Amino acid sequence: MLSKSKIQFIRNLHTKKGRYEAGRFLVEGKKSIDEVINSDLKIVEGFFVKNWISPLKIDFPATLISEKELARITSLSSNRDGVLVIEIPKNPIKIQQKPQDITLVLDHINDPGNLGTILRICDWYGIFHIVASKDTVDIYNPKTIISSMGSFARIQVSYTDLSEYLQGIATPIFGADLQGENLHTFDFSKYFPLHLVIGSESHGISPAVKKFLTNTVTIPRFGEAESLNAGVAAAVILDRIVGK
Amino acid sequence: MLSKSKIQFIRNLHTKKGRYEAGRFLVEGKKSIDEVINSDLKIVEGFFVKNWISPLKIDFPATLISEKELARITSLSSNRDGVLVIEIPKNPIKIQQKPQDITLVLDHINDPGNLGTILRICDWYGIFHIVASKDTVDIYNPKTIISSMGSFARIQVSYTDLSEYLQGIATPIFGADLQGENLHTFDFSKYFPLHLVIGSESHGISPAVKKFLTNTVTIPRFGEAESLNAGVAAAVILDRIVGK
Repeated sequence: MLSKSKIQFIRNLHTKKGRYEAGRFLVEGKKSIDEVINSDLKIVEGFFVKNWISPLKIDFPATLISEKELARITSLSSNRDGVLVIEIPKNPIKIQQKPQDITLVLDHINDPGNLGTILRICDWYGIFHIVASKDTVDIYNPKTIISSMGSFARIQVSYTDLSEYLQGIATPIFGADLQGENLHTFDFSKYFPLHLVIGSESHGISPAVKKFLTNTVTIPRFGEAESLNAGVAAAVILDRIVGK
Repeated sequence: MLSKSKIQFIRNLHTKKGRYEAGRFLVEGKKSIDEVINSDLKIVEGFFVKNWISPLKIDFPATLISEKELARITSLSSNRDGVLVIEIPKNPIKIQQKPQDITLVLDHINDPGNLGTILRICDWYGIFHIVASKDTVDIYNPKTIISSMGSFARIQVSYTDLSEYLQGIATPIFGADLQGENLHTFDFSKYFPLHLVIGSESHGISPAVKKFLTNTVTIPRFGEAESLNAGVAAAVILDRIVGK
């Protein structure tokens, strides 16, 4: 039986305000829960629908709940499994780039599903650090977590003032721009380690961030679409950066 | 003033069944409406919130409606502009590939947002023909139309039995597969015109379709994500096919 106050505590984690006040976020559904159990994230407690958790070895308090109780605490209508309460990790203070590292910079990405897709793309291309503007959507948004397909557990996101951050960067800073150099012929090999800035879905890279770009590239277009989705553009550019 | 029967007629177009029974689909919101007015699609009638339509030259019956009326007929909570009723074009019977053509084949894509993203990607890379399995989500789903950002008006989608269709294809048929050749070093130049098959978000390419593939490629992975989103994978592969 879940107490009223516990239900309220968990429901508060559906909102950004509630998450940061509590220092906790929710992970919902089997796929995401499995990823977290195999990660370094600190699990505070878990709530599982009967008989599902038994085969797992766990080192955190777990409570069996009914499907009805789950429906009251989860934010996902598709969740039939359970939820975990996780400690929000501290924002890493400084990112140390290694010679072949790519750091992704997100400038005002505001769709939680897009952010999840970007986390999954980073996890595919071996990028483990993201620096995000303070107005980028929260990585612990339930929609971001679910659309990252578990990748949120392997990617570090630091929210910060991008102008301040980029001011201190000595390595190349790339951005996508319609007037940039042709992505298909650009030779990235002499530019590592590097930063790649991805702009917002509707307004692209903001002027305050644009002035820090050292290089711009453009994805050649063969049709009539005005733009590509932020995640799609990130993937196409990263694929060209990492693949000869 | 909209009649009750007109409201019901338009609301029926929110569902696939209603759309194909009426032979009509809805286009909602300014961005999509602008694209349709500049396309070859046949507009049957339009409903606009006061003062918005006036500067346009239109050759179809248009009705001014209130915001309240719009809210009753639109499927998009963000729509403040109006809706168009459009004639569903006939399924093209046969696709004639020209020498440099790429035809995209969708095998059971079931997320309407993903299909919209794929239409936008095709429109960027100059691909105007999609052949989709009968169980692929409807191109006229309101979520597909909105997430295509207008590209739905420029892309032709034929729904058909993929086995039957692919049986008659003499040009190379590519698919993504973890055991495929390295995308980054594959030379597509001698394979045009070609077909590219994109599999479902959860199950990849179905066995019945897989046996028609003449070539498989894999997107090299540098991290730990299990897969990429169908639209992202399509974009990364298309970028390599079209870009030297």
